[in-house]
Amino acid sequence: MRRSGPPQSGPAQELIDSGFALENADAPFLHEGLNLADIAHVLDLLRREIVPAPAARDLLRLLLEVQQVAVEDFPYDPEFGEPYNSRERFFVGRLGKVAGWLHAGRPRREAARIALRIHVRGQLLELVDEVVRFARDTTALAARHVDTLMPDQTYLQQAQPSTFAHYVLSFAYPAMRDAHRLLDEYDDINRSPAGAGCVNGTRLLDDRTFVAAALGFDEVIEHTRDAMWQIDGLIHVLASAASLLSTQSKLAEDLEIWSSSEFDFVDLADAYTRSSILMPQKRNPYSLSIVRGASGVLIGRLTGFLAVAKSPSARSDNLIFAYGEVPRALDLAIRVTRLMAGVVRTLDVNVDQMARGLDAGYTQATDLSEYIVENCGVDYRSAYEVVGRTVREASQRGIPGRHITGAMLDEAAIAETGQPLGLTAADLSTALDPRVIIESRKGTGGAASTAVRSMIGQCERSADDLSRAVERRRQGLDQAVKRLLEQARTTADLVKEPEDPDD
Amino acid sequence: MRRSGPPQSGPAQELIDSGFALENADAPFLHEGLNLADIAHVLDLLRREIVPAPAARDLLRLLLEVQQVAVEDFPYDPEFGEPYNSRERFFVGRLGKVAGWLHAGRPRREAARIALRIHVRGQLLELVDEVVRFARDTTALAARHVDTLMPDQTYLQQAQPSTFAHYVLSFAYPAMRDAHRLLDEYDDINRSPAGAGCVNGTRLLDDRTFVAAALGFDEVIEHTRDAMWQIDGLIHVLASAASLLSTQSKLAEDLEIWSSSEFDFVDLADAYTRSSILMPQKRNPYSLSIVRGASGVLIGRLTGFLAVAKSPSARSDNLIFAYGEVPRALDLAIRVTRLMAGVVRTLDVNVDQMARGLDAGYTQATDLSEYIVENCGVDYRSAYEVVGRTVREASQRGIPGRHITGAMLDEAAIAETGQPLGLTAADLSTALDPRVIIESRKGTGGAASTAVRSMIGQCERSADDLSRAVERRRQGLDQAVKRLLEQARTTADLVKEPEDPDD
Amino acid sequence: MRRSGPPQSGPAQELIDSGFALENADAPFLHEGLNLADIAHVLDLLRREIVPAPAARDLLRLLLEVQQVAVEDFPYDPEFGEPYNSRERFFVGRLGKVAGWLHAGRPRREAARIALRIHVRGQLLELVDEVVRFARDTTALAARHVDTLMPDQTYLQQAQPSTFAHYVLSFAYPAMRDAHRLLDEYDDINRSPAGAGCVNGTRLLDDRTFVAAALGFDEVIEHTRDAMWQIDGLIHVLASAASLLSTQSKLAEDLEIWSSSEFDFVDLADAYTRSSILMPQKRNPYSLSIVRGASGVLIGRLTGFLAVAKSPSARSDNLIFAYGEVPRALDLAIRVTRLMAGVVRTLDVNVDQMARGLDAGYTQATDLSEYIVENCGVDYRSAYEVVGRTVREASQRGIPGRHITGAMLDEAAIAETGQPLGLTAADLSTALDPRVIIESRKGTGGAASTAVRSMIGQCERSADDLSRAVERRRQGLDQAVKRLLEQARTTADLVKEPEDPDD
Amino acid sequence: MRRSGPPQSGPAQELIDSGFALENADAPFLHEGLNLADIAHVLDLLRREIVPAPAARDLLRLLLEVQQVAVEDFPYDPEFGEPYNSRERFFVGRLGKVAGWLHAGRPRREAARIALRIHVRGQLLELVDEVVRFARDTTALAARHVDTLMPDQTYLQQAQPSTFAHYVLSFAYPAMRDAHRLLDEYDDINRSPAGAGCVNGTRLLDDRTFVAAALGFDEVIEHTRDAMWQIDGLIHVLASAASLLSTQSKLAEDLEIWSSSEFDFVDLADAYTRSSILMPQKRNPYSLSIVRGASGVLIGRLTGFLAVAKSPSARSDNLIFAYGEVPRALDLAIRVTRLMAGVVRTLDVNVDQMARGLDAGYTQATDLSEYIVENCGVDYRSAYEVVGRTVREASQRGIPGRHITGAMLDEAAIAETGQPLGLTAADLSTALDPRVIIESRKGTGGAASTAVRSMIGQCERSADDLSRAVERRRQGLDQAVKRLLEQARTTADLVKEPEDPDD
Repeated sequence: MRRSGPPQSGPAQELIDSGFALENADAPFLHEGLNLADIAHVLDLLRREIVPAPAARDLLRLLLEVQQVAVEDFPYDPEFGEPYNSRERFFVGRLGKVAGWLHAGRPRREAARIALRIHVRGQLLELVDEVVRFARDTTALAARHVDTLMPDQTYLQQAQPSTFAHYVLSFAYPAMRDAHRLLDEYDDINRSPAGAGCVNGTRLLDDRTFVAAALGFDEVIEHTRDAMWQIDGLIHVLASAASLLSTQSKLAEDLEIWSSSEFDFVDLADAYTRSSILMPQKRNPYSLSIVRGASGVLIGRLTGFLAVAKSPSARSDNLIFAYGEVPRALDLAIRVTRLMAGVVRTLDVNVDQMARGLDAGYTQATDLSEYIVENCGVDYRSAYEVVGRTVREASQRGIPGRHITGAMLDEAAIAETGQPLGLTAADLSTALDPRVIIESRKGTGGAASTAVRSMIGQCERSADDLSRAVERRRQGLDQAVKRLLEQARTTADLVKEPEDPDD
Repeated sequence: MRRSGPPQSGPAQELIDSGFALENADAPFLHEGLNLADIAHVLDLLRREIVPAPAARDLLRLLLEVQQVAVEDFPYDPEFGEPYNSRERFFVGRLGKVAGWLHAGRPRREAARIALRIHVRGQLLELVDEVVRFARDTTALAARHVDTLMPDQTYLQQAQPSTFAHYVLSFAYPAMRDAHRLLDEYDDINRSPAGAGCVNGTRLLDDRTFVAAALGFDEVIEHTRDAMWQIDGLIHVLASAASLLSTQSKLAEDLEIWSSSEFDFVDLADAYTRSSILMPQKRNPYSLSIVRGASGVLIGRLTGFLAVAKSPSARSDNLIFAYGEVPRALDLAIRVTRLMAGVVRTLDVNVDQMARGLDAGYTQATDLSEYIVENCGVDYRSAYEVVGRTVREASQRGIPGRHITGAMLDEAAIAETGQPLGLTAADLSTALDPRVIIESRKGTGGAASTAVRSMIGQCERSADDLSRAVERRRQGLDQAVKRLLEQARTTADLVKEPEDPDD
Repeated sequence: MRRSGPPQSGPAQELIDSGFALENADAPFLHEGLNLADIAHVLDLLRREIVPAPAARDLLRLLLEVQQVAVEDFPYDPEFGEPYNSRERFFVGRLGKVAGWLHAGRPRREAARIALRIHVRGQLLELVDEVVRFARDTTALAARHVDTLMPDQTYLQQAQPSTFAHYVLSFAYPAMRDAHRLLDEYDDINRSPAGAGCVNGTRLLDDRTFVAAALGFDEVIEHTRDAMWQIDGLIHVLASAASLLSTQSKLAEDLEIWSSSEFDFVDLADAYTRSSILMPQKRNPYSLSIVRGASGVLIGRLTGFLAVAKSPSARSDNLIFAYGEVPRALDLAIRVTRLMAGVVRTLDVNVDQMARGLDAGYTQATDLSEYIVENCGVDYRSAYEVVGRTVREASQRGIPGRHITGAMLDEAAIAETGQPLGLTAADLSTALDPRVIIESRKGTGGAASTAVRSMIGQCERSADDLSRAVERRRQGLDQAVKRLLEQARTTADLVKEPEDPDD
Repeated sequence: MRRSGPPQSGPAQELIDSGFALENADAPFLHEGLNLADIAHVLDLLRREIVPAPAARDLLRLLLEVQQVAVEDFPYDPEFGEPYNSRERFFVGRLGKVAGWLHAGRPRREAARIALRIHVRGQLLELVDEVVRFARDTTALAARHVDTLMPDQTYLQQAQPSTFAHYVLSFAYPAMRDAHRLLDEYDDINRSPAGAGCVNGTRLLDDRTFVAAALGFDEVIEHTRDAMWQIDGLIHVLASAASLLSTQSKLAEDLEIWSSSEFDFVDLADAYTRSSILMPQKRNPYSLSIVRGASGVLIGRLTGFLAVAKSPSARSDNLIFAYGEVPRALDLAIRVTRLMAGVVRTLDVNVDQMARGLDAGYTQATDLSEYIVENCGVDYRSAYEVVGRTVREASQRGIPGRHITGAMLDEAAIAETGQPLGLTAADLSTALDPRVIIESRKGTGGAASTAVRSMIGQCERSADDLSRAVERRRQGLDQAVKRLLEQARTTADLVKEPEDPDD
C-alpha cells in the first residue's frame, strides 16, 4: 500500500531555493491578512468552545502582538517552509503546544486565501482611487483646452479639426469603465472563503458568517470547493488592470510622438522627464516609456496567470503563484496610474503649434464635401472626388486647405465630371474655417464646446461617483477591522491580567 | 508641401494578399451588420432630407435585396479592397452615382464598428445560452449524484471524503459568474457608435439617437472619439471567454485523469470519444483534448488582441484585427462550451469505483484528528501528529483508514508524546465513516446532502435568471431589426411601384 | 472492468462542429504531406513484404491519383471525423478491404506528424526567402541614402546626426538573425518521425531510414516517443516568426510617425496606402497598420501555442491545434514580410525635410562637449553642463545648434563654473557641422559613409548566403519528392497493366 | 522654439516611486557588469589619452574598490534616479569633477547594455549546466529502469507496452535541444555593444575591439544602432527558457498523476513533498506544482517582453524592462530546473504497480492485430476490427489482454466477417506478452532494451558535450575578467603609492 502520512525528512535545498523562497517573497502581501484571519479564527473557535479559553487568550495576545510587527521584522524564512510554516514555528516557539489549537478546522490554504483577498481588496480600492485622480486630472486638463484647436488624426494623418479637450477626454471614459469593472471585481473578491475546511466544509465550524463578518467580507462564497479554488475573479482583476494600462499606454505613446520637436504639440513638465548622461541637449519624456513598458508587462502578467491556471482543478500552483503575481501586478498598475495622472496634471500644451498644424493641412476636406453635397445637389462620392482632386492639386501647389477657392473646386469638378459645380464665386471661408467646423459638432459627444463642456461635467460626476463608491467600501473595511481588533483585545483581556506586569 | 488626397494607383499585390485578404476573410462576421447599418443610415439621411428621396428609395431597395444575400454569394473580393470597398463597387455597379449618397456623414469605419457590435452582441447572447446549458447539465448531473461518495483531492492526493455532486457543482459557479460578466460586457457592447463622424462628430447627423434605436442599441456611446476607438469592451469579452474556457479545461483535465483505467471514476459516452486507427483497444476521450486545447488557444487570442492594441490611440489595426479575431474566438468558445455540456450531460459515473477509492484511503484523517481534539482535550497540532503517525504505520501494514482502531492511536500517541489518548477501547466506527463525515458538512456550501441540494436549487435558479436575461435582450434586438426592415420596406415603397413588374 | 475497444456509435453533433470541424479546416495544410507520407509508407510496407504486391499496387495507384487532387476537391468532411478518417473512408470506398493495409504499423498520428513537418519545412524556406527579399530591399534603400542626413532619435527626441542609410540598415541585421534561427529550426523540423509506431516503435518497420530518405528528411528523430510528441521546434518556429515581425513592426511604427505631415520624412508609394471613404484629403499608410497588427497577432499565436502545450506529456491537443495554428501563423508572417519588403522597396524619402530637421536642432551637442573635453582640458561632466546650459538658452532665443558660438559657451561656462572656457574667438563651425560629425563615426558599424558602405556589402553577402542556404535545402526536398513519385509510379507500374482497360 | 537641454528640477515623487524604483530593483543584476564596464571604459579612455592619467588612476582605484562592494552595500537609491545616477553621485561625492571623465564617449545606455549582457551570459551558462544535470539525472534514472515495464499512454489511456526508461528518456532529448538553443543565444548575447556611442558610433573611441576583448565578449556587434537596441536575442533567450520549462512541466504533470494513490506508479522523495497542516494523511508532491506554475509564469514573461517590445524602434522601455524581466525569468528557470533534477534523481518508481497496470490492460492489441496480418493474410483494418471486438468483449467479461485466446478471436472474426481466422488452437502467449512485444521494438529509438541502452549512451555523450561547451565558455569569461582586473590594478598602481597611507 502506498505510503501515507506527513513526510519525515526536511525539504531539499532545491525546494527551499525555489518553492519556499518564492512563497516567502510574497509574505509582504499576506502578512496583514494572515494576522487578521488568525485572530478571527481563534475568536470563532472560542465562541464555539472548541478551543479552551486560556489557550484562546494566549493565542490572541500573541496574535495581537504579531499584528503590530512589520513583515520585515517577522521571522519569515524559506528554511522553515512557506510563510504559514514560519508563523507556526514562531507560535510554537512562544506558546508551545497551545499554538496547535490554531489549526483546528482550518487548512493553511484557507488562511492564505483569506489573506490574499484582504490584500487585493485594498489594492483594488487604491487603484480605483488612482483612476479617479487620473480622470479628474484629465478632465481638468480638458477644461483648460476646450478652445484649443488641433488636427485630430487617424493613421497619424491629419483627419478632422478638433480640440485638445475633446482629444484628451477620450481617455477618461475607458479609464472609468475599467474602474467600474475593478469595483465589480472588488465585490466578487470581497467575499469570504472562510469555513470551507479543506474543500468540502468543516464539521467544527459550520456557521460561516462569523468570520466573514469579522473580516469585513460582504458575504460568504457559497460552494466550499469553489471558495477554495476559484480564480476567475483574479483573472478579471488582471484583465482590468491590463486594459486600464492599455488606455494609458495609448495616451503615453501619443504624447511621446507629440513631444517630438517635429510635432511639438506638448511638453512634459521637467519633473517627469530625464536628462541624458551623454547628450546635453536631451530632455527625455522618460515617464512615458515607463507607462508604456508597464502596459506590456501587465499583458504578460495576465497571460502568465492564465497559463498557470491551465491545469486540472484544485491545483495549488494556481493560487501559490497568484499570491505574488496578482499583488505585484496591481502595485505596478497603481504606481503607473499615479505617474500618468502626474504627467497629465502638469502637461504643457503648445496651443499655437497645434493651431499651426491645423492651418497647414486639409482637415476641412470632409466638411467641404458635405458643403458641396448640401449646396450643389451632388452625391457624397462625387463631392469627395472633386475635393480629393482639389486637395491633391492644392498640396502640390503649396496652398493650404483654408485657402481653397470655389474656382479651384470648379476646375477639379470639370476634370472629374466634365462640368463645374458653380462655386467659382462662392465664399467658402466659413466652410473652410476649422473653428466653425468644430462648432458644428454639437451633437452628443462631439467636439463643439457645448458638447465638450457637457462631457466634462459628466466625467466630473462619474469620478465623484467612483470616489464615493470607494470610500463607502473602505469605511466598511476599516470599521470591520477595528471591531475585530477590539473584540480580540477585550477577549484577550489584556488590562485585567495583573500577573504579567513585565509583559 | 506633402502630397495629400487619395492615392491614384491601385493597391500592390502584396497588399491585396495581406491586408485586403485578411479583411475579406472577416466579411462573414460583418455582412449582416453592414447591411443593417447601411439601411439605418439611409433612413437617417432621408429623414433629415440630406439624401433626395428617390436616391434613398433606390438605395433602400438595393440594400434590402443585399440583406437577403448570403455572405458567400456577395462579391466580396480582396482585389477591390476591404469588404466595404467591395460593397461600394457593387452599389455603384447597380445604381451609379446614386450609390455615392451612402457615404454622406459616415466613414467606413463607423459602419464596420456598428457591424462588429451587431455580430458580437449576438455571439454574446449565444455564448451565455451555452453557459446556461452547461450549468443546467452540470446541475442535473449533480442531482443524480448527491449520494455518490468519492475522495476529493488536492495535489491529486486523496484529501477528504466528498460526493461527486459536490465536486461537479463547483464548475457551475465560476461558469455562471463568467456568464454574468459576459452579460455586463453585452450591455457595454450594445451601445451605438453611430453618428461619431470620423471621430469628432458630424454636422450632418447631429441627433445620434435615431440610428441607435433603429439598430437595437440600448444607448448612444457619448464621446465620439471613444465611440470610434474604444477596445476595452472587446478585451473583456475575450478575457471572459478565456476565463470561461479555463473553467471547462480544468473539468476536462480532471475527467481525462478520471477516465484512465487506473482511476476509472468516469467514462465518456461513445459519441464524445474517438477510436485509434492503429490500436484496437482504444476509446480515446478526444472531446476533452479539444476543450483543453481550445482553452489554450483562447489565452493566445486574448494576449494577441492586447498586443495588437499596444499602439498609439486611434490606430486602425486595433479594430481591423478585432473584426476577425474577436468573432472567431467567441465562435470557438460557443462550440466548445456546447461540446463540454454534451460531455457532462452524457457522462457515465462509476459510483462503485469511487466508493472503492474512498474505502482504500485515509480521507477520514482530518475528522479523526478533530474527534481527538473534541474528546481527548488536546490541541489540533498534537492530534494531527498522532493521527499522522497512525496513518503512516497503517499504510505500511496495509490497513485502510476505516479500520484504524483506538489502540493504534494510543500506540502512536505514546510514541509521539509518551502517553496514550485513552482511546484503546473506543468505537471509532462513526468517526471513520466517510458517509457520516460528509453529512457533518452541513454548513453553507458543504458536501452534506442538504447543503448540496440547496446549492442545486440555487444553481437552477441562477441558470433560469441568466436564461431570462438573455431572452429579454434577444427579443429587444429581434424587434428592433424587424421594425427597421419594415420601415425600410415601407419607405422603399416596394408594393406600390407598378413600374417594376419584372423586378 | 472498464470498457475497452473502439466506440460503437458515431460522434455527437457537438463534436463534429468543434473538434472535427477544427481539424478539417486544417486539411489544406496536411493534404500534400499526407499523400506523400501514405505513398512512402506503402512503398516501405511493400519492400518488407508486409503488404501483398497487388494490394500495394492498387494503393499506390489510388494515392498517386489523390496526389493530383487539390485539397478543396477531396471529400474532407467533418461528418466523417478528422481528415485522416475522410481519407480512409474514401480509400475504402474505392478499394474496399485493400485500403485496410494502409494502417499496418502506423498510427494516424504519425502520418499527420509527417504531413505537418512537410508543410512547415516548405513554409520556413518561403519565409526565409521573404526575409532575404526584405533584407535586400532594405540594403538597396540604404545604398541610395548613404548621404541622406537625418537626426537619429531616442525617446523620439533628436539625439545625434546620422544618415537614413544607417538608420534603415539597422533593421536588416535582426531580420537576418531571425532568418538564421528559422533555418536552424528548419534543420530541426526536417527530421523524420516515421517508424515511431504508436510511441515506442513498431515491430513491423524497424528500419526507419527508408521513409525518412524517401520524404526528403535529413535524418531520423532518434527517440520514438520524442519523435511523436516533441513541440519545442514548433515553439521556436513561432518565436522566430514573432521576433521577425517585431522587427518589422518597429520599422512600420517609425515610418508611420515619419509619414505624418508634421515629420514628413518619408512617404509610402500609393500602392501601399489606402484612401478614406469619408475624408478626401487622406492617403493612409494602411500597409503599416497591417504589419503592426500582424505582429501583435503573432505574439498571441506563440502564447496560445505555449498555453496549449501546458499539459501532461503525450497529449493529442498539443499537436491537433498545432496543425492549424503553426501554418496559419507562418502564412501570416510570409505575407506580411512580403508586404513590408514592398513598402521599403518603394519608399519615398524626403531628403530635404530630414536635413531641415537636423538643421533646426541640437544633435551636435555631444560632439561639442567632446570638443570641449579635447580642447579645454575639462572633464566630460563639466563640458556637458556648459553645453547643456548653452543649448537651453539658445533654444529659448531661437538659435539652432549650428549657430552656437564660442562666446555663448563662455557665457554659460561662467554661469556654471565661474570661469570661461576661452572659446570666445573659436571657430566652431566644424565641430557643429552634422556632416563632419557623421564622418567622424568611422569605427565599425558607425554612421560614416565608409562604415555604412562596408555594412551594405556585408548585408548583401549575408543575404546571398541565406538565399543559397534556402536553395540548397529546397533542391534536396524537390529531388526527394520527385524520386518518391517516380518510384511509386514505377511500382504501380501504371503503363504495363493491360488487364485494367476500363480503369 | 522648443525647450532643449537637461531638465532643471528634480523628479516627481510619482516618478521616483515608479520608474526609478523599478530600475533600482534591478541593480543587483547590473552591478557587477557596470563595474566591469566602467573599468574597461576608463582603461580605453586612458590608452587613447582622452582622460588624463591621474584622473584615470583615481577613477580606477575607486572602481576597483566599488567592484568589491556587494550591491546591497552600494548606495543605490531611487531618490537619485536609476542606478547609473546613483553611481555617478557616489563617484562625484568621492572624486569631485574627476568623476566627470567617466562619461566621455559613452552614454549610460551603453554601460547598462554591457552590464545586462554580462549578467545574462553568466545565467545562460548556469542554466545550461542545470539542464546537463537534469539530463544526466534523467538518463541515470532511465538506466536503472530499462527493464521496468509499464503501459505507455495516449489520452492517458493505456496505449502500448513500454518501459519506464523509454518513457523518462523522452524528456532528456527536448531539454538538451533547448540547451543547445540557449548556447546559440549565448553566442549571440556574448557580443559587444561597446563603442556604439549614443547610437551611431563615437568619434572618441573608434576602435571597438579593446573593450570587447577586455570584457570577454567574443566579438563586436557590427551595426551600432543595432548594437544599442537589438532585442531579438533576449526574446529567444526567454522563448528557450519557456520551452525548457514546458518540457519539465509536462514531466511534472505526468508524475503528479502517477503519484496519485489510484495510479501509484511513482513516489517523490520526502524532501520534495510537503505535508498538509490540516490533513494528517497528506504527503503532497509540492515540488511538482512549483515546476508547473513556474512554466506558466515563464510563458507570461516571454509574452510580456514581446508586448513591451511592440513599440517603435529605439525605445528605452524595451531595455529598461528587460534589465529586470530577463534576469528574473532566467533565475526562475535555473532554480526550477535544479528542483526538477532533484525530483528525478530521488524518484521512487513502483515497478510492481506499473507491471500490474500493464497486466490488467490491452496494450498488446496492436501487436495482436499485426500478428493476424502476418499470419492470417488479412489487411490491417480487418485485423483491427476483429481485435477491437475481441477486446470489447473481453473487457466486459473481465478477461485481461494477456488471456485472449485464438478461440475468442475466431468468435469475433465470425461476428465481424462471417468467417474465422483459424486461430482457435493457436498459442498466442508470445504475441500477447508485453515483454516480447517491447523487445520487438529494436529499431532506432524504440523501447527494446538494446535501443534504449543505445540512447542512454547517446544522451550521456550529449550531456558531456554540453558540459564541455559550457566550461569552455566559462573559462574564457573568467580569464578575461581576471586579466581586466589585473590590468586595472596595475594601471591604478595601487602598491607603489606611498603618499596615500590613510586611504
